[in-house]
Amino acid sequence: MTALRSGLAVGVDFGGTKIQAAVIDSSGRVVASHRRDTDVEGGPSKAVDDIVRCVHACAADLSEIRTVGVGVAGQVDAAAGVVRSAPNLKWTDFPLGQRLEQALGVPVVVANDVRAITWGVWRHGAGRGIDDLIVMFVGTGIGGGIVSGGQLVTGDRGMAGELGHMTVVSGGRRCTCGHSGCIEAYVGGWAIAERAREAMQADPEAGRGLVERVGKGDVTARIVSEAAAAGDPLAIELLAETGRYLGDAMVGLVHVFNPRRIVLGGGVIDGNPSLVAAVESAVRTGAISVYSEWLQVHRSELGAEAGVIGSASLALERLKEDRTVR
Amino acid sequence: MTALRSGLAVGVDFGGTKIQAAVIDSSGRVVASHRRDTDVEGGPSKAVDDIVRCVHACAADLSEIRTVGVGVAGQVDAAAGVVRSAPNLKWTDFPLGQRLEQALGVPVVVANDVRAITWGVWRHGAGRGIDDLIVMFVGTGIGGGIVSGGQLVTGDRGMAGELGHMTVVSGGRRCTCGHSGCIEAYVGGWAIAERAREAMQADPEAGRGLVERVGKGDVTARIVSEAAAAGDPLAIELLAETGRYLGDAMVGLVHVFNPRRIVLGGGVIDGNPSLVAAVESAVRTGAISVYSEWLQVHRSELGAEAGVIGSASLALERLKEDRTVR
Repeated sequence: MTALRSGLAVGVDFGGTKIQAAVIDSSGRVVASHRRDTDVEGGPSKAVDDIVRCVHACAADLSEIRTVGVGVAGQVDAAAGVVRSAPNLKWTDFPLGQRLEQALGVPVVVANDVRAITWGVWRHGAGRGIDDLIVMFVGTGIGGGIVSGGQLVTGDRGMAGELGHMTVVSGGRRCTCGHSGCIEAYVGGWAIAERAREAMQADPEAGRGLVERVGKGDVTARIVSEAAAAGDPLAIELLAETGRYLGDAMVGLVHVFNPRRIVLGGGVIDGNPSLVAAVESAVRTGAISVYSEWLQVHRSELGAEAGVIGSASLALERLKEDRTVR
Repeated sequence: MTALRSGLAVGVDFGGTKIQAAVIDSSGRVVASHRRDTDVEGGPSKAVDDIVRCVHACAADLSEIRTVGVGVAGQVDAAAGVVRSAPNLKWTDFPLGQRLEQALGVPVVVANDVRAITWGVWRHGAGRGIDDLIVMFVGTGIGGGIVSGGQLVTGDRGMAGELGHMTVVSGGRRCTCGHSGCIEAYVGGWAIAERAREAMQADPEAGRGLVERVGKGDVTARIVSEAAAAGDPLAIELLAETGRYLGDAMVGLVHVFNPRRIVLGGGVIDGNPSLVAAVESAVRTGAISVYSEWLQVHRSELGAEAGVIGSASLALERLKEDRTVR
């Protein structure tokens, strides 16, 4: 009864580098949180143990927790709670939801990480109250989610919203997914770094500023952002190009979904907030005018906690649906 | 009362070249039909008169007709019944629904033509019973529609599904919509003709077969199809290229929507049924594997009557919804 009254849930953001868990209340506020590094080599069983430890570390008394939501960077069959494919974790077809429910004794919801973020953005963030919403998070990779007609778009197996693997240059750059020309292969953090590396090699003179910043390490999207902010011409050009690709992809999505609002977030956007204006300008000038007259482009306001807030609130929603249905 | 019992509706397919009207029963069968040429120069008022004439010509007794659905090639605010923009007709912001209701005295539903076709395909065609469906019709232009979670995706202003204006080559060929790199600018009938013209000019030797077929006229997508069927190497290459662009666009849509089925139709597909296999092969090899394992690719089976069947059955559905709500 305490749990039902409290409306507390634990949200877990589970990726290739870290596990972040937080207790979230029903209004989307973080009450307590805990994080640890991901042990990729330990495999799924070690991950289950580590997630359970994280949950206990931030919620000492599980009787107050109604449900646990886990956002995973990968393809998830959300209805079954199965991680179908998570390249960063080297997982295929692992029943994470079932294993965590056995270990924790509370209902567990597993979803793609950015699908969970989309839920958080829609319920507690920059997408609040919007029935037709596109959420795109650009970090090392690109993830997304769609709300259409007041419903989260899930698709046939709960895997809709993989916006990073939309083709934006037919026959173009090779992507980590195996296909070529995906928007992620141009705009994802790894791809910005790759494009920078090529540009530095192609024109060492123009690349001198970046080479100095990089030193003995390897160029990253963050270094490109910092160099652009400091006025480096090659970095500025790389980011302008990034904005053009992102804008062109978004013009297409606007025609497909006719959204009322677009929300952008993630590390690459946070490092280069001007990309939000670049996308807004692209849809205003590039989309058929009747599609852009009501359209708004916002930046996410949930920060680094978007993942835990999203997965917890998605899990609370599922619990509500289940109690309605049964 | 007769009308309510009969469940008859009139569907109108209204485009830049013709007005086709048909009486459709509740199971999607054509009972009677009529067509006339579109008088584009006559403007919206002439069009209202001509549509009314077509409706009367196929349904002598309007008391048996419960509703009229009109599919228009253009952007339509479906809730308001307003044609926002129809370049082929040279219309902007015309309240077609209201004007036709005044003239006909029955409820009228106005929708984008391919959104109406999508409804027909979903209820009476190759998409029957599928909750997550992508419909793409490739003719002179490209139109589409999406069913997600058992709902037609409408977007904020009823204009979602404009699949032809997804970017597939960032910074690529100029499109009729004003933007560049849209899939329509590569695969629409007008674009196939344009690409053929350029290829014939670039390599007159390779283009000789097409030049002979064209004679004194201009090359068309139909001529390219016929030449390819007859073994002309340039035409075959143009169609292979068309298949690659279409396939790449569809791989992106599969990642965005996670559909169970894709249905392809329209004049370009009917002229080159091998494009269906090209799309199927592209999604099988190009999409992340968990997206394609349940996916089916079908060709539309409604033929040239898809438009009238779709708009009539969409109108019948709206009537049902209205009676439920009120």
